[in-house]
Amino acid sequence: MKLLFINPNISESVSALIRAEAVRSASPGTEIDVATASSGVAYIETRFEALLGAHAAAQIAAERHERADAIVVAAFGDPGLMALREVLPSPVTGLTEAALASACLLGRRFSIVAISQRIRAWYAETVDAYGLGSRLASIRGLDAALPDIGAVQGTQGERLVQLALHCVQHDGADVIVLAGAPLAGLARDVADRIPVPVVDGVSSAVRHAETLVRMRAGKARAGSFAPPPAKAHQGLSPEIARLLARAHGGGLMQD
Amino acid sequence: MKLLFINPNISESVSALIRAEAVRSASPGTEIDVATASSGVAYIETRFEALLGAHAAAQIAAERHERADAIVVAAFGDPGLMALREVLPSPVTGLTEAALASACLLGRRFSIVAISQRIRAWYAETVDAYGLGSRLASIRGLDAALPDIGAVQGTQGERLVQLALHCVQHDGADVIVLAGAPLAGLARDVADRIPVPVVDGVSSAVRHAETLVRMRAGKARAGSFAPPPAKAHQGLSPEIARLLARAHGGGLMQD
Amino acid sequence: MKLLFINPNISESVSALIRAEAVRSASPGTEIDVATASSGVAYIETRFEALLGAHAAAQIAAERHERADAIVVAAFGDPGLMALREVLPSPVTGLTEAALASACLLGRRFSIVAISQRIRAWYAETVDAYGLGSRLASIRGLDAALPDIGAVQGTQGERLVQLALHCVQHDGADVIVLAGAPLAGLARDVADRIPVPVVDGVSSAVRHAETLVRMRAGKARAGSFAPPPAKAHQGLSPEIARLLARAHGGGLMQD
Amino acid sequence: MKLLFINPNISESVSALIRAEAVRSASPGTEIDVATASSGVAYIETRFEALLGAHAAAQIAAERHERADAIVVAAFGDPGLMALREVLPSPVTGLTEAALASACLLGRRFSIVAISQRIRAWYAETVDAYGLGSRLASIRGLDAALPDIGAVQGTQGERLVQLALHCVQHDGADVIVLAGAPLAGLARDVADRIPVPVVDGVSSAVRHAETLVRMRAGKARAGSFAPPPAKAHQGLSPEIARLLARAHGGGLMQD
Amino acid sequence: MKLLFINPNISESVSALIRAEAVRSASPGTEIDVATASSGVAYIETRFEALLGAHAAAQIAAERHERADAIVVAAFGDPGLMALREVLPSPVTGLTEAALASACLLGRRFSIVAISQRIRAWYAETVDAYGLGSRLASIRGLDAALPDIGAVQGTQGERLVQLALHCVQHDGADVIVLAGAPLAGLARDVADRIPVPVVDGVSSAVRHAETLVRMRAGKARAGSFAPPPAKAHQGLSPEIARLLARAHGGGLMQD
Amino acid sequence: MKLLFINPNISESVSALIRAEAVRSASPGTEIDVATASSGVAYIETRFEALLGAHAAAQIAAERHERADAIVVAAFGDPGLMALREVLPSPVTGLTEAALASACLLGRRFSIVAISQRIRAWYAETVDAYGLGSRLASIRGLDAALPDIGAVQGTQGERLVQLALHCVQHDGADVIVLAGAPLAGLARDVADRIPVPVVDGVSSAVRHAETLVRMRAGKARAGSFAPPPAKAHQGLSPEIARLLARAHGGGLMQD
Repeated sequence: MKLLFINPNISESVSALIRAEAVRSASPGTEIDVATASSGVAYIETRFEALLGAHAAAQIAAERHERADAIVVAAFGDPGLMALREVLPSPVTGLTEAALASACLLGRRFSIVAISQRIRAWYAETVDAYGLGSRLASIRGLDAALPDIGAVQGTQGERLVQLALHCVQHDGADVIVLAGAPLAGLARDVADRIPVPVVDGVSSAVRHAETLVRMRAGKARAGSFAPPPAKAHQGLSPEIARLLARAHGGGLMQD
Repeated sequence: MKLLFINPNISESVSALIRAEAVRSASPGTEIDVATASSGVAYIETRFEALLGAHAAAQIAAERHERADAIVVAAFGDPGLMALREVLPSPVTGLTEAALASACLLGRRFSIVAISQRIRAWYAETVDAYGLGSRLASIRGLDAALPDIGAVQGTQGERLVQLALHCVQHDGADVIVLAGAPLAGLARDVADRIPVPVVDGVSSAVRHAETLVRMRAGKARAGSFAPPPAKAHQGLSPEIARLLARAHGGGLMQD
Repeated sequence: MKLLFINPNISESVSALIRAEAVRSASPGTEIDVATASSGVAYIETRFEALLGAHAAAQIAAERHERADAIVVAAFGDPGLMALREVLPSPVTGLTEAALASACLLGRRFSIVAISQRIRAWYAETVDAYGLGSRLASIRGLDAALPDIGAVQGTQGERLVQLALHCVQHDGADVIVLAGAPLAGLARDVADRIPVPVVDGVSSAVRHAETLVRMRAGKARAGSFAPPPAKAHQGLSPEIARLLARAHGGGLMQD
Repeated sequence: MKLLFINPNISESVSALIRAEAVRSASPGTEIDVATASSGVAYIETRFEALLGAHAAAQIAAERHERADAIVVAAFGDPGLMALREVLPSPVTGLTEAALASACLLGRRFSIVAISQRIRAWYAETVDAYGLGSRLASIRGLDAALPDIGAVQGTQGERLVQLALHCVQHDGADVIVLAGAPLAGLARDVADRIPVPVVDGVSSAVRHAETLVRMRAGKARAGSFAPPPAKAHQGLSPEIARLLARAHGGGLMQD
Repeated sequence: MKLLFINPNISESVSALIRAEAVRSASPGTEIDVATASSGVAYIETRFEALLGAHAAAQIAAERHERADAIVVAAFGDPGLMALREVLPSPVTGLTEAALASACLLGRRFSIVAISQRIRAWYAETVDAYGLGSRLASIRGLDAALPDIGAVQGTQGERLVQLALHCVQHDGADVIVLAGAPLAGLARDVADRIPVPVVDGVSSAVRHAETLVRMRAGKARAGSFAPPPAKAHQGLSPEIARLLARAHGGGLMQD
Repeated sequence: MKLLFINPNISESVSALIRAEAVRSASPGTEIDVATASSGVAYIETRFEALLGAHAAAQIAAERHERADAIVVAAFGDPGLMALREVLPSPVTGLTEAALASACLLGRRFSIVAISQRIRAWYAETVDAYGLGSRLASIRGLDAALPDIGAVQGTQGERLVQLALHCVQHDGADVIVLAGAPLAGLARDVADRIPVPVVDGVSSAVRHAETLVRMRAGKARAGSFAPPPAKAHQGLSPEIARLLARAHGGGLMQD
């Protein structure tokens, strides 16, 4: 089985963290492929950055999905995930969706520990969009500058543990989600210092993507996740145009 | 005052409808500019199409916002609106947001009459994302093929009125929203056949955009609509890169 | 165009604040009329005071609505607004409804800064009744005695700014609403000290009432905002009896 | 113990129905007093009619509360209830609040069977305002003209039973609430034809009002149901002015 | 009238508190019977302890319900209540359900003051399951060890009052619920020190159970509270088997 | 890895279906153990039957959990799941929780197709308790008698497909959950006749239980899923007493 992780940001150092944790988490026989966006920002904290990341993720998915059995949008916030689920023939998930699925299987209310203050509003909207607001205990974030996003686990690890403990003691968290691709793999290192289950987005995504492949639940041909209906388009990248054409078995080019 | 309407789709016929209704609705002294996406689909019905439209809207906004006092994302569903509100220095709204603001000022529960069955799930998610689910009475849509999207008012006008009457009689609608740029201006023609207030997205957007300009409420410098923080980026269009740089007074180019 | 602002309280000093800000905000050609309740309390903080204000507002509306193109209930909390929307032939809005419409067009979550602690519960219920609870970040209020309600901007202005800053920094507010007719016009003075958009109820009501007049969306003839059905009544003021009779084209007097 | 039922409408025939059912339901030693509004409409179906009823109820409560141990607002929709709970020294409830309390003690989801189509929106808002929307299965109403509101049980009884059966079979109702003072006492007559518990507002109000008197839980001196703070007022009826003065032990008359 | 209170825990000292308060609260002619679980834990704080309590309550109800006109599950959290409402022919309520019904009749938002920190999550879930989350202001709990659960009123009474005052001053509570059978009767002693109405679960349950008996609203024969359908079973206690058989008038024994 | 499936009902025929599907779904190296309740009913449709099943599941878990790496409560509705998650040292899930996790990874809104009309209320409450009500499109159920619960797939398979198609076409379902242990394995047979992904509870539980074991997220030592605090108990089965003692490392026996 092949899983394609799409880092919708430009940070190769974060892609390396994603790859390392994904490989550690994968079942025997699962291959991990990680693609890094060629356009975008260093890491996503805002809705506009997510818009850029969503488009980059779509382009990569269009280029490379045929070589994968399942796709993972590898940024917390899952930019573009629901859109890709419509158009791709294979299963897709994202770090938030996967981490929240794990958290829901481990307890009732979860807190998210994040890399910045700014990022919290976007994460809260993501959780709400998934209809899981009633299970969110809190979102807490670092308040430090992050000049080297790939090194945040080293420089901020202790502070992140303190935030997690605060969520357990004061916010009623049954589970802690360490959020964001830059924290991929940290859960392993700090789990024994946090007295509730700790969830990592990347390893959750590996496991749930494998499950989706194995379940063979089928691609929607009706309902709101059926492929977009065939209609005129123009100016799209060749890969995205091909993806649309394949999705509905034809498609019209406007001229 | 200058208002820029961004049609995130490629249909010039729909842009013409938008322009005509916007000009009719504008206050004296308000100029209307309409830009049509150079890439995308004929009209948006799904999340993936919205992703494409959001990116096209961002590119147009980056290119042209400096010549406008306020911006309108001129597709129902408001692709990219919240992202643009972060990054643009001037006010931004969208057809759904504006129509819903009007509807909330006219009654308690509104129904949305839409151009297709497929589009309903995306509209429902948009309303939910605005926190207005409790005021939504229903969404009803046409079930016909729409080969010429710019002509839908003429070919489907009668059916749309019937759908609106059904919403009033059976769904508890206090207000009807005729949804989607292809229906721009229809409200004027059919209002006297529908026994509750009828709302049009384009005229609502004109009026509310004018209000936002006049109110001078200020651009957020803090909170979740402050401009994205400065950080490394690459591969963005020159216009979007310049928008980010201007937003945070500098910006870092990764090399 | 003529807008009638109904101050459902007895404070002429507050009516003067309302008038001043309304005149400043009105478009060219819009005339502002302000009526002060002849019965009631100095300012509304509780549900019982709102009941008194709602009745006073209804009486004034019945007396004077024919000389106005739109009506504004000019107390935050909007006493009687939904009732007047049923019975009046012209558009009606209120300070809360209008301010919240503005806030929703400017950001995602808003905080309300209010003149007292006691008033917060009533405001929270008003926001909930509008279905906007998910967009409310917080309500914060002064905790001082207010012997001269018309002078609160002068004596408490600094403290109100501090409350607003607290909402931005700690409660996640994207927008600040300065609530209550006694604060009419304050937003202009303090906007540059608050790093997010600041909304004023009176100027919002002027703009949105103008919009409602211009939109000509129509008066409900069906649904829950149609005029009350004709039925026996007695003991009502002549003006309210006439309003009911006019609303349903006849009406029955019980004898 | 003395219970005062306030019929906020002008229909003496409905007051007679209220009195009859209240007397049948009262515990030994409980006296029932029923007051009919001297101003208002025949029966409340809309928000504006409720505004009129709320004010009439306040005036009656101000005049007569001292002779009662508890007060009941005897119209479904409970016009003025929350306001009276602030200002009156003794317990207050209403037909909706009381009926819903009974329904919640008998099952999980309840349906409301009502006397008209129009009344449904107002009832739905009342249930929502009580935070019980998730327990509401449906509201169904008669669609007949009701020329003699005091005779509706006789003329429409069969149809009301049919509506109730529909709620059980199709809407998932565990409990039926027969809503509105004009239906007072009907539950006794039809309970054995409806296969779930049937709740009557008047008998519920008698029982719960007796409970509130017996519980001696105390009048709020703090929080949002404390009496309104003392402040200037003018133009109020002598009884309401006296009620306010008594509530806060003084009060200021503006002159 | 006979009311059976089922203490689903093994603490006779708590049963004595329940009995004392129930007897004080009962109307003339109401007899109180209290049964203590023969298996279980000292007091319930967690979901697993509630599972044990629910089963013990069911066994006692099966053994003794025929001698009672109504049943009360006498632990806050109401273990087994909804299940017993299906299967028993007579009305059933519980301490939480009854206390919340009282609280809703006395104000809008209530806080729960509880005996431990741990118990709060389970209480919050109980309130949510009743659909009353929007009326919950807060849950605050003791943080002391409770070696003698029957003596907690004496050793922790002062601290409980302080928690209640905190709920009023900081959490917006209109009403205080003193939660848990070990606090039965405390409300009487401390009510005058708390400036909002104070509700006790046991006295509420007495009053509401009496009301349910008097209302004769009928046992559900349809809907989700009809008795469980007849079907094969095995290994149940003779009393539970008899209860099921009686509920559906027969029942099948598997062999 | 060893997974223990607990059938909380007495039907060996259903246990056989569970076992067959679990074995088909398990990864290489995963062993499946299925235990059938020795006491209880043939299949659970109501809250009372779930109470019986929860207790039976707890007893089996206490007896056999030490021989398993993870536990599955193998009835839709998950009787006892949250309680067992507190007390067991290893991960636990249930058919509903697992199926809903799968459904959330495959689409936005899911419908549940169930074996009876009666069962729908309990399922709806289960979904609500998981905070997923906003993602539930509908629950539809068979309306036939089910004399042989182990044969329902054969006798009712066609009708179940029709219900699923109805959910897709009329209720807005993006995903279908075939609910209940008696339907274990049916999804495989009918997936190609239903145009959206189809989810099976047993195979979902196998996959997610394997994931929980592999993730090693840790057992809660704090928060609401920590083991119940040590306290006096009596009358429990030796296995449950031992489970409690082991959970908190000691425990007190009351004598």
